[in-house]
Amino acid sequence: INSKLPEVSTTIFTVMSQLAHKHNALNLSQGFPNFEASPELIDLVTRGMQNGYNQYAPMPGSLSLREIITKKTNSLYGSHYHPETDITITSGATQAIFTIISAFIHPGDEVIIFKPAYDSYEPSIKLYGGTIVPIQLTAPDFSIDWQEVASKITSKTKMIIINTPHNPSGSILSKEDMLQLEKLMKNTDIILLSDEVYEHIIFDDQKHQSAALFPGLAERAFITASFGKTFHTTGWKMGYCLAPKELMAEFRKVHQFNVFSSSHPMQYALAEYLKVPEHYLSLPGFYQQKRDFFLSMIKNSRFKFIPASGTYFQVLDYSAITDESDIAFAERLTKEHKIASIPVSVFNLNQKDDKVLRFCFAKTEDTLKRAAEILCEI
Amino acid sequence: INSKLPEVSTTIFTVMSQLAHKHNALNLSQGFPNFEASPELIDLVTRGMQNGYNQYAPMPGSLSLREIITKKTNSLYGSHYHPETDITITSGATQAIFTIISAFIHPGDEVIIFKPAYDSYEPSIKLYGGTIVPIQLTAPDFSIDWQEVASKITSKTKMIIINTPHNPSGSILSKEDMLQLEKLMKNTDIILLSDEVYEHIIFDDQKHQSAALFPGLAERAFITASFGKTFHTTGWKMGYCLAPKELMAEFRKVHQFNVFSSSHPMQYALAEYLKVPEHYLSLPGFYQQKRDFFLSMIKNSRFKFIPASGTYFQVLDYSAITDESDIAFAERLTKEHKIASIPVSVFNLNQKDDKVLRFCFAKTEDTLKRAAEILCEI
Ligand SMILES: CSCCC(=O)C(=O)O
Ligand SMILES: CSCCC(=O)C(=O)O
Repeated sequence: INSKLPEVSTTIFTVMSQLAHKHNALNLSQGFPNFEASPELIDLVTRGMQNGYNQYAPMPGSLSLREIITKKTNSLYGSHYHPETDITITSGATQAIFTIISAFIHPGDEVIIFKPAYDSYEPSIKLYGGTIVPIQLTAPDFSIDWQEVASKITSKTKMIIINTPHNPSGSILSKEDMLQLEKLMKNTDIILLSDEVYEHIIFDDQKHQSAALFPGLAERAFITASFGKTFHTTGWKMGYCLAPKELMAEFRKVHQFNVFSSSHPMQYALAEYLKVPEHYLSLPGFYQQKRDFFLSMIKNSRFKFIPASGTYFQVLDYSAITDESDIAFAERLTKEHKIASIPVSVFNLNQKDDKVLRFCFAKTEDTLKRAAEILCEI
Repeated sequence: INSKLPEVSTTIFTVMSQLAHKHNALNLSQGFPNFEASPELIDLVTRGMQNGYNQYAPMPGSLSLREIITKKTNSLYGSHYHPETDITITSGATQAIFTIISAFIHPGDEVIIFKPAYDSYEPSIKLYGGTIVPIQLTAPDFSIDWQEVASKITSKTKMIIINTPHNPSGSILSKEDMLQLEKLMKNTDIILLSDEVYEHIIFDDQKHQSAALFPGLAERAFITASFGKTFHTTGWKMGYCLAPKELMAEFRKVHQFNVFSSSHPMQYALAEYLKVPEHYLSLPGFYQQKRDFFLSMIKNSRFKFIPASGTYFQVLDYSAITDESDIAFAERLTKEHKIASIPVSVFNLNQKDDKVLRFCFAKTEDTLKRAAEILCEI
């Protein structure tokens, strides 16, 4: 077999979740909530199935769901997305990202990404013969030097991928960052992929700087979003993407032959559930409480941290504890101390090891308490 | 925009369904049932959600679902699929097909397909720089000349795609066909993609000739299957594929970065529902009754036909009625006579027009009766 992805092995999320399972460890590795989705949302799926939403949804998604999302987005960010042409419902944001790359990356195209990066970007780009142009960010603040970005842009640059709030670091891009990016992209043909799956999980009254807020970005951007992150239903695999209609038309050409369409009963339920803005506007408070609870409990531990600005991930620096590699330390924590996390080096350029681990705090207070107790003993 | 699929427009299924909707026509075009899914299956999804199956399923699918499918397949076809390594649950069979092509087709690879062909194969192959080697079959029997197939195999042939029972023709491959194919593929490195989404919809006591029945095919085959077709839930977008572990390992490398995993509550429900074999073994009788009812009602019309051997599609020859192109006639039937079908030429090489239309008979008796009445008046 002539493998197209010889270097790819099982994603770190599966590896660590399996290790957690094997060693009966608290699983703060893979990002998913360990509490329940809303009974009201579950009832809506049941109602959708009972009301006959069991056959193909329209290929770009059910119109009522597209309408409510574009309305929400336009009202939050002052954008002008049209429900007919500028949005497609997808089987998770990962599928949206894969399909965007499928639709636009030709062999030899360059794609600028920031490391640490979510692990689906690179193999997807490679599958289409694209060249990855990585820019390494550094703990603890993971800030972007836009001069450096400018120096990496060539005539072959086809796409730039940003992610805010940022997984795994928990950092966010500021308005100034977005303005710098807007200036850089002006008068180019570069497409922006703005991965905003944690848009509603942002703390300390900071404002999410969506690409939709910046006309010079929105006109060339795909924005990806995730219902799994927002409604505690990662296993439903529902998301969407937004883009101007010319870009979205190319996206749909691939989407219709990749998954064709996404779950109809779930789309029915989500359209109903989104009618109550509180269902997503309550998220910052909900997760900030979890972050603060977790951090207050470990403030006397030997781990160092800057509180996450967004996402449900907290990066902890363990350099005061050991000089083991983060992979070795994450393994040892799982096996011996019964707590699983994600070693951030796997997302870095050349596996650069900053001695930080990522912990998911989308967990019940009880789990967070037990996790903190373990971390305080290390 | 430098389109990667400049020739692709909206799929014919969406075009015809929209036209049917616009003209308030009976929609026998796109393939989906207009009757309800089983209340028991719907209740199982609800139970899955209430029991907490709302976070990521394992990447290859929930183990209990993989176990019951491999057991079913092995007992029906005498194969030896292993639940851990030889099966992946997908977000519909279309996603399986796209991912198989993604994982194996390099630029310049040749893929032999039989026309008329389901419309997702070709754009998926083109997206990866593959070369399509089409073999045109002819109404009314759509039989394959294996000598012709042999003559098309070159050192660049990477994959052969078959589809039995066959959409859109309703024909099936015989045991003799499969033995011929097995002989052809022996001592080659060619991968077989056997699209068997209608495996349980086969009539007149004929036996489905799965690639899984033939060791010389199974050892090199991906078999794709669809819960939407089998359980009247096309809108749930659930399917799977089977393959030997070396091939499946390559599939999963792409799958984990395309959709990562598929709906967890649906997987829970399907695993439970599959425990009762009657749920799929009743399908031939159920659909044969519909086919026979529909055909008995139109036997005095001016349409000619050979009864479909499988699938829920019936091809009707209208050459005794008009010499209009099938696209023009399908449009006119929708607008003037209020019945929508699929013109088969869109699936043919160079849009070869055999003057046949495809009608979906996965419809209630009432709909089939009204459809037949219209067809008898034409
Ligand atoms: C698709 S599994 C990974 C979940 C996730 O987004 C994460 O843990 O970063
Ligand atoms: C994905 S829409 C097409 C449904 C179908 O399989 C058909 O009508 O042939």
